[in-house]
Order: sequence, then C-alpha cells, then structure tokens
Amino acid sequence: MPKKSRRDRLPGDAYSPQVHARFWLISDDQHNYLGVGKVRLMELIDELGSISQAAKTLNMSYKRAWTLIEEVNQLGPLPYVIKEVGGAGGGHATLTGAGRSAIAQYRALERDLQAFVAQRTAAITL
Amino acid sequence: MPKKSRRDRLPGDAYSPQVHARFWLISDDQHNYLGVGKVRLMELIDELGSISQAAKTLNMSYKRAWTLIEEVNQLGPLPYVIKEVGGAGGGHATLTGAGRSAIAQYRALERDLQAFVAQRTAAITL
Repeated sequence: MPKKSRRDRLPGDAYSPQVHARFWLISDDQHNYLGVGKVRLMELIDELGSISQAAKTLNMSYKRAWTLIEEVNQLGPLPYVIKEVGGAGGGHATLTGAGRSAIAQYRALERDLQAFVAQRTAAITL
Repeated sequence: MPKKSRRDRLPGDAYSPQVHARFWLISDDQHNYLGVGKVRLMELIDELGSISQAAKTLNMSYKRAWTLIEEVNQLGPLPYVIKEVGGAGGGHATLTGAGRSAIAQYRALERDLQAFVAQRTAAITL
C-alpha cells in the first residue's frame, strides 16, 4: 500500500457506501471557501464558547484554528466569529447571525446532497 | 494569505460559481477509490495508448502513474488497464471494458451532480 488515499486524509463525510463526496461553498471573489472543517470548527466554538477549546476538541493547534477563523471572517461582508481576547482563562468567542446562517446553508446543502447521492448511486458497479 | 486553500490544491471540478464539489467511487472493501485524478489518467491512457505519455500530460511521474494504475486495477473483480511492457519505445497500454464502464459511470454521476448543484445552490449567500 503506497500512501494513504486522499479519502483517508480528508475529514469528509461519507454519503453512501459507494460514493464519498465533499463540497465547498465559495466566496464571491473565488479566493475563499467554506468546507466541513471550518463548519465543524464554528459549530464547536458555538457549543463551547472558546476557540482554544474547539481547537483542542479537533486536535488542531490554536494557531491553525485562528487562521481558519480569520479566513471564515473574510467569507462574506460580515464576520462569522466574534473574538473577545484576554482575561483570566482566555477569551470568549461567539458566532454572529451571519455565521449561523452560513452553517445552516452548508448543512442544508449537505443533507440534500446526501439524499441525492444515496438515490443516484445504488446501481454503481466497479 | 496563509497557505493555498485546499480548493486550490485539489484538481476537483467546479460545479457552480458558488459550490465546488468532488466525489469518489468507493470499492466494495472500502479501501480503494476512483476519483477524478484516476479517471483522467485512464482517459488519457485510452487516448494516447501509453502510460508514460499520459503521465507526462498530467505532469505526473511515471512511478506515480504506475501506482495509480495498480490501485485502479484492484477496484473491481476485473482490471481496468492492461499493460504490455517492453519493446522499442516502451510498452503499450489499453483500457478494458470494465475500465470503460467505470469511467462512464463516474462521468455520468458527475454530470448529474453538476446539474443538481447548479440547481440547488443559486440562492446561497455567504
């Protein structure tokens, strides 16, 4: 076995036993994207109220999480994550309405895509 | 700009200005896959009759192309690419019926997915 397949390396979701699919929502300027990694990070920030706790849950460095959040906040005209830095025990982070809307759109498309793939791929034979 | 986004690094197709998607057909044992890279390599082998020419066209090393073909030939019960080694100027390679069938199924699903995504994503606002 040479190296791990791309499928193994990506945190993408499986949509059927026969097809794995991933998708990214693209920013208007085509230079930024929202994928499952950023969506999951935002969901955890929403749940835990903390970038560092969310990063830890994902086995991601704090620096990496910050970079992703900076990118996420450039996706649309409004930021998705508000960071309150400092204080004992570190800062607090919350999602904005725009952030919640982006997540909802991503997850809705994911549900539709899952249904489409499940329906469309029953007949594949390799 | 930190590093290139995953989107830039993947050879995936764009299905609409707002959504980029990729998918992989998975082998029955879940340890092998067919994605756009292997499909494109096979299409070029079919066109050029040569693994080395196909690899060159993709700026891929011959070794890498061989590895992918070995994987491709493990996807189903029948091989997809037949290699005739040796002779002056290197060997010749052709696709089997099973290989053509796999490519056709991949491209058909791709067309359907493109249509689905184009229809489903007109309303996305980040």
